[in-house]
Amino acid sequence: MKIQPVIMSGGSGARLWPLSRRARPKQFLSLATQRTLFQDTVLRLSDGGDKFSAPLIIAGKDHASLIEEQLVKIGVSVADIILEPCARNTAAVAAVAALWTAKNNPGALTFLSPADHHIADNKKFRNAVISGAEAAAKGFIVTFGIKPAHPHTGYGYIQSGDKVATGAFRIDAFKEKPDAETARYYLSEGGYFWNGGLFLFSAEAMIEEFARLNPEILTAAKNALDYAKAAGKARLLDEDAFAACPSISVDYAIMEKTANAAVIPDVDAGWSDIGSWSEVTGDADAAHLIHDSRNVLIRSDGPVVGAVGVENLIIVATGDAVLVARRDQAQEVRALVEELKKRGREDLL
Amino acid sequence: MKIQPVIMSGGSGARLWPLSRRARPKQFLSLATQRTLFQDTVLRLSDGGDKFSAPLIIAGKDHASLIEEQLVKIGVSVADIILEPCARNTAAVAAVAALWTAKNNPGALTFLSPADHHIADNKKFRNAVISGAEAAAKGFIVTFGIKPAHPHTGYGYIQSGDKVATGAFRIDAFKEKPDAETARYYLSEGGYFWNGGLFLFSAEAMIEEFARLNPEILTAAKNALDYAKAAGKARLLDEDAFAACPSISVDYAIMEKTANAAVIPDVDAGWSDIGSWSEVTGDADAAHLIHDSRNVLIRSDGPVVGAVGVENLIIVATGDAVLVARRDQAQEVRALVEELKKRGREDLL
Repeated sequence: MKIQPVIMSGGSGARLWPLSRRARPKQFLSLATQRTLFQDTVLRLSDGGDKFSAPLIIAGKDHASLIEEQLVKIGVSVADIILEPCARNTAAVAAVAALWTAKNNPGALTFLSPADHHIADNKKFRNAVISGAEAAAKGFIVTFGIKPAHPHTGYGYIQSGDKVATGAFRIDAFKEKPDAETARYYLSEGGYFWNGGLFLFSAEAMIEEFARLNPEILTAAKNALDYAKAAGKARLLDEDAFAACPSISVDYAIMEKTANAAVIPDVDAGWSDIGSWSEVTGDADAAHLIHDSRNVLIRSDGPVVGAVGVENLIIVATGDAVLVARRDQAQEVRALVEELKKRGREDLL
Repeated sequence: MKIQPVIMSGGSGARLWPLSRRARPKQFLSLATQRTLFQDTVLRLSDGGDKFSAPLIIAGKDHASLIEEQLVKIGVSVADIILEPCARNTAAVAAVAALWTAKNNPGALTFLSPADHHIADNKKFRNAVISGAEAAAKGFIVTFGIKPAHPHTGYGYIQSGDKVATGAFRIDAFKEKPDAETARYYLSEGGYFWNGGLFLFSAEAMIEEFARLNPEILTAAKNALDYAKAAGKARLLDEDAFAACPSISVDYAIMEKTANAAVIPDVDAGWSDIGSWSEVTGDADAAHLIHDSRNVLIRSDGPVVGAVGVENLIIVATGDAVLVARRDQAQEVRALVEELKKRGREDLL
């Protein structure tokens, strides 16, 4: 049974400001390897056609040329590029992905993956995805529970229940981002996993669940696809139809309501969503100048950075904006981005 | 008796990198007021022609247009602009200044001032300069001893001796930059002052001392002036002649050898040579974004800076280079500049 990778590249995240911008969100940055997260995601889900079909890319319309350029650089051919005329969250993307797969790769399972996560061990990850095929073929919508490395309070957790197929378990509960005490309890108790936002399902099963639980999303997605227009090598979803789609997450629209949610637990492939600069690692580029300093992360898209007598800092430099943050407070960059919005500094967003 | 201000703007200092560059050294930056240090120096020594004549500017040839532009902005007319074809330290400048004054403003005293210092109280400063006129008219080469605010180890000290004129004292010794203990001794003992690099003298007396102590500098300066060529509104010293001049400081060439060195002690006009970012003060521009941070100095010639959870830092941002330094270690920026030289990064110097 083939797996149809669908890479969700619609994020416009500014959590890695000032390097990430609306025009070049996180997935198009090289944060973990020499390649961008988008390129690494495409390559991760390519196995020469053995189990994985050529991927479908679903992305924001402003990033079409960026995507084509990045695909050319890694020499990967994709099945299709579908452009969203506006952002409508992951439920709409899941519906489009299921409809597209049913029509263009009938019989294949759909694997939905964000474009902006990092995975250290790609082979292990692919094997985890493949291990979900049995449950997905049975009609389960399969998520992947990341083995929690520490009691993180920034992720949702998945509680696993009874076995439904080889290696797959029913989902007993989706847990919101916990407080520190609750997160520690989850880890000591066991059976709780980080929700990695990854989904494997049969297109037909997903379409059925949408029809039952959120028919308006399914209709909007179908119309948007049916009336899509060619846009270079890509296709642009019909704007009126897609705009009519409720903007909610697939977790909220389907996963928390369906009786057929399953989880492949304990996925241990070095997953990170690189949600903030705190989760970016690596040494400073040799172009930079480090003097009498320790534990300083430097990222730059051009300017040379000099650090003198400092420690535990993140320094991110671009030609028009610079971030200097204490390493353990990098998530607070959101406050800066909000302030920029308030000030109308669209040029820096 | 008139005073001929001569403003030495030949510095190429990169101590305030990355804002200061060879193309725009410290004196052309706005570090203490809305105006540049050069502009403030020119205005400080202008009193509408009461005691001070229109200034002579001596500067590096690469900065001619910068100087003309900055003078236009403050609407001050200068007596002349003399351009150095190469840097030859302050002895050469003092010789040129004396020769120029003797010819163009005969009978006036020459007041030699760096262009890159900050003075908080200009009137008090001018009065200190004027108070040196009596000793200078007697043939003394008068320096100005800055009242030491604290036991600074980065400055030379002047030890004052017997009185030679109203308010002026013979110089008993020039002291090299002291260690911390010695500096503390100087302050507790009294009679020691920071050497501010400021000089008042009769042109004839200075020419005489050069003829006696360093005739080759005097000859080189005279030839360089005699064969100077017009360069726009300025005059460019003859390159061959000026290049032949030994490159030493006026302190070393004259002051430490002459029997006629005097000091106006205890000048207390809020002097600072702004020798490093540690000596730059002021609040961050409102364009920047400060979140949960304390005691952060931000300077930028364009990029917006965001600071998150940091303290006691200096952040200096330009389009091609960024400095992040602990506030009390800013003098170490020299090490970065040296490293850039080693790496051949002329573009950043």
